[in-house]
Amino acid sequence: MAHSEVEPHLIEDHYPLQSHIGFKMTGWDRDYARFELPLEPFLMNRYGIPHGGVYAVLLDTVMGYCGCYTGDPKEKTLAMTLSMNTNFLSRPTGEFLIGEASRIGGGKRTFFAEGTIHDENGTLVATGSGTFRYRSA
Amino acid sequence: MAHSEVEPHLIEDHYPLQSHIGFKMTGWDRDYARFELPLEPFLMNRYGIPHGGVYAVLLDTVMGYCGCYTGDPKEKTLAMTLSMNTNFLSRPTGEFLIGEASRIGGGKRTFFAEGTIHDENGTLVATGSGTFRYRSA
Amino acid sequence: MAHSEVEPHLIEDHYPLQSHIGFKMTGWDRDYARFELPLEPFLMNRYGIPHGGVYAVLLDTVMGYCGCYTGDPKEKTLAMTLSMNTNFLSRPTGEFLIGEASRIGGGKRTFFAEGTIHDENGTLVATGSGTFRYRSA
Amino acid sequence: MAHSEVEPHLIEDHYPLQSHIGFKMTGWDRDYARFELPLEPFLMNRYGIPHGGVYAVLLDTVMGYCGCYTGDPKEKTLAMTLSMNTNFLSRPTGEFLIGEASRIGGGKRTFFAEGTIHDENGTLVATGSGTFRYRSA
Repeated sequence: MAHSEVEPHLIEDHYPLQSHIGFKMTGWDRDYARFELPLEPFLMNRYGIPHGGVYAVLLDTVMGYCGCYTGDPKEKTLAMTLSMNTNFLSRPTGEFLIGEASRIGGGKRTFFAEGTIHDENGTLVATGSGTFRYRSA
Repeated sequence: MAHSEVEPHLIEDHYPLQSHIGFKMTGWDRDYARFELPLEPFLMNRYGIPHGGVYAVLLDTVMGYCGCYTGDPKEKTLAMTLSMNTNFLSRPTGEFLIGEASRIGGGKRTFFAEGTIHDENGTLVATGSGTFRYRSA
Repeated sequence: MAHSEVEPHLIEDHYPLQSHIGFKMTGWDRDYARFELPLEPFLMNRYGIPHGGVYAVLLDTVMGYCGCYTGDPKEKTLAMTLSMNTNFLSRPTGEFLIGEASRIGGGKRTFFAEGTIHDENGTLVATGSGTFRYRSA
Repeated sequence: MAHSEVEPHLIEDHYPLQSHIGFKMTGWDRDYARFELPLEPFLMNRYGIPHGGVYAVLLDTVMGYCGCYTGDPKEKTLAMTLSMNTNFLSRPTGEFLIGEASRIGGGKRTFFAEGTIHDENGTLVATGSGTFRYRSA
């Protein structure tokens, strides 16, 4: 499954949590988004592995964006997460995480998304699904 | 519902993500845990409100700890999150978040937890539930 | 927590699945609903215990109704489930299930609910949460 | 994605809820299961469409079976659902439901599954994910 890289003019300025955690958009298209996150030491939990909440941050981000693509940076679509489910399958063996999500249903008021997190070795680390509500800008 | 504050000798050293996000334990007892998180600017999303993943970080933390109380810092119980569900009810009006969780079931191998996040004004911001697996130390 | 029993004029005719499974409303008030379900033999799975889906049927029902109370049988509020999470804590020791749910948040377009299932012995069998969308009649 | 039909000698006797609701296995292989369910009138809710719990029954069934394939009817693997998440995307336009699930992770004690429900027209009606615990026979 090949996806276009995100066009440079669509990249938004990093918002505060994004800079703080360090994920960045690497793909955005209709009903699809991808972000990557280097596994910096500050993301680790008491066991020395990534905190489960880190996966949730990444999944919430990619799932939210995947339903908001417009292709026009002046015309933004915004969405709020209503609920999100996360499954924690394994721990990563690599050095960064790749989060991808697809919009799988919904209409003008709400949408459904599914997401996955792999590391660069192809290990499936976590999966998620969520319901989102569109909001006015 | 009154809960004992956490006894000082049970407070663990902050792990990396904990220091990076800024939450700290304020209550820990059998089947119960509470953490608080000041809403610093670096937690905000592209809308200027806390990123949904921040609630997930806090819920995963309190739910995980609530099933791992032993009362003895030398005898640690550890757990891994299997799955977690988060519901995003409203945005906080206050300046910090209070996450609380209770272990509501399970046995020696797995446990179930429920958690809530309020702000200091009593606004219910998010709820969560999760399944956890005990692991050896 | 004492709740008013449901007033007789609010009881709706049983719909097909309700008759087929056998649950009936035993409480309905603002932001609250309760249904009961006798554990008939036809609800059992390959292990001879209630099929997990039976708990989901009951939780979806009580959570949906808890957000739709109007007190006026001529003025119906209707809702569709967007997503639902179910946790399976233990198996019942009694002869019927009691499902209860509360609306815990939301607005005019969507709502959030939480539900529990106990048996008549007080055993907590399952919990759930869900997001719902109001629809026009 | 073509899957082998289920081999006749692996088909188990219908258990009570299975007969009562009417779903039947139409595919079973390593890490995969498929069941079908005719949309009989007794499955409908107060709106005349399938009750959300019906999708949960089907998803719980296919997800549970997908992790329990052995290929040998004398050597059964059994599993209990720990938690399940269900998303309700649209209503079916056809006359029966096709539930499919895949085991996507886990080990000897627990497993993770994902499932979908389509109708025979290809409409994606619901999705789900779940965590399961293996049990001894």
